[in-house]
Amino acid sequence: MAGTDKTRGVPEGADFGQGPAVILVAPQLGENIGACARAMLNCGLIEMRLVAPRDGWPNPKATAMASGADVVLERAQVFETTAEATADLDYVLATTARPRDMVKAVLTPRAAAAECRSRIAGGGRPGILFGGERSGLVNEDVVLSDAVVQVPLNPSFSSLNLAQAVLLMGYEWFQSGSDTPAVAVPGSDSPATVEQREFFFTRFEAALEESGFLFPPELAPTIKRNLRNLFNRAGLTDQEVRTLHGVVKSLRGR
Amino acid sequence: MAGTDKTRGVPEGADFGQGPAVILVAPQLGENIGACARAMLNCGLIEMRLVAPRDGWPNPKATAMASGADVVLERAQVFETTAEATADLDYVLATTARPRDMVKAVLTPRAAAAECRSRIAGGGRPGILFGGERSGLVNEDVVLSDAVVQVPLNPSFSSLNLAQAVLLMGYEWFQSGSDTPAVAVPGSDSPATVEQREFFFTRFEAALEESGFLFPPELAPTIKRNLRNLFNRAGLTDQEVRTLHGVVKSLRGR
Repeated sequence: MAGTDKTRGVPEGADFGQGPAVILVAPQLGENIGACARAMLNCGLIEMRLVAPRDGWPNPKATAMASGADVVLERAQVFETTAEATADLDYVLATTARPRDMVKAVLTPRAAAAECRSRIAGGGRPGILFGGERSGLVNEDVVLSDAVVQVPLNPSFSSLNLAQAVLLMGYEWFQSGSDTPAVAVPGSDSPATVEQREFFFTRFEAALEESGFLFPPELAPTIKRNLRNLFNRAGLTDQEVRTLHGVVKSLRGR
Repeated sequence: MAGTDKTRGVPEGADFGQGPAVILVAPQLGENIGACARAMLNCGLIEMRLVAPRDGWPNPKATAMASGADVVLERAQVFETTAEATADLDYVLATTARPRDMVKAVLTPRAAAAECRSRIAGGGRPGILFGGERSGLVNEDVVLSDAVVQVPLNPSFSSLNLAQAVLLMGYEWFQSGSDTPAVAVPGSDSPATVEQREFFFTRFEAALEESGFLFPPELAPTIKRNLRNLFNRAGLTDQEVRTLHGVVKSLRGR
């Protein structure tokens, strides 16, 4: 399963090296490391660092759970301590759900992503620490960091598993660089012109007039306006306008 | 493990009923349903609906994976079809990674969360559809929805597992909690429920069948789907649905 395609998931010309390093500190289960790799690649992050993985490295269980994100696992570097794993970085974030008895800036994932973007743009090398499954990061890891990241979640039920924490951080990283519009209308079909819409409405209203729907006459303008409004809200395509012409004609029995 | 504390994770006085319903369509593994419940409660969402879960319901494997989110599983409702599961909702989003041959607005999770907030503030009842592990949502589910949600991710490696998709949508829901303005719903008219919409479509299609529009028969499913899609995009109100019933009846000359 591993290694069949070492570049799968990495688009031609992609410069994913320019993301923050994801540093898993004392991870336990290989499955979770694999799930983290998948979440990272989902978000265009490929630099994974492992601090003292309990079950050694490489770990075939990680590969099985990575769902094809082999490129991340194969590049993963292993270190003995968090200090070594972050030695070449110049900005370190520590993800932790628990408030610490420590004066430290606390960022949301969104703010943390923006901070990483601007540091990378300025030539910096940021990284994000994630604690192991059992106890998360220890104070020594947090102290080493520049700031803490906390995910705003249900305060009564905020515990995330490792891969989900990586996913949320990676998601915000990807969103902070994405120019995806908030709303898009896909399809090869082109929107109808106002002229096409109006021509349909004219025909439609004539059919309604003929069938007696626009009654009493004093209400006709309101009925027409409401029907136009309804169809215009849908953002009709030209193909849909043609279909609607057919519908009216057919219902009238012609 | 299950049921020891039925209110764990729900803060005193919390009104989590006011979130969008999370509808899992044809989910397969109980473990994944449990992981979804955990992700939902992380994000303050407690209304889960299941459409035809493959392994029946309740499912002890779901409880084992829910990590204490029992309150979500215990309230979960089971339905046979997506239409039944959404009948009382008035705004339905379909999460899908695949572009469909269908003209439909596409929202990011962030925009979708804002839309749900606005609708709930206006008294609406939104829900979000998630497809099963194997093949995701089918076209019939997507056509039933008002809009599609796509998560902007690495285009070469965008596949998320079920619980991660739920987590990202829930995360944006939770983040949107603070600064989303209430929507202005003009007039006293309220959005039609899916049940009202579906009832109209049934009548409409029967009239089209009778008038010979659904010809040739092999094209009928596509024609019906496109018409449903067009009207669902408009976000029909209940008054408009009544008007459309009248339009069809009148055009048929009855």
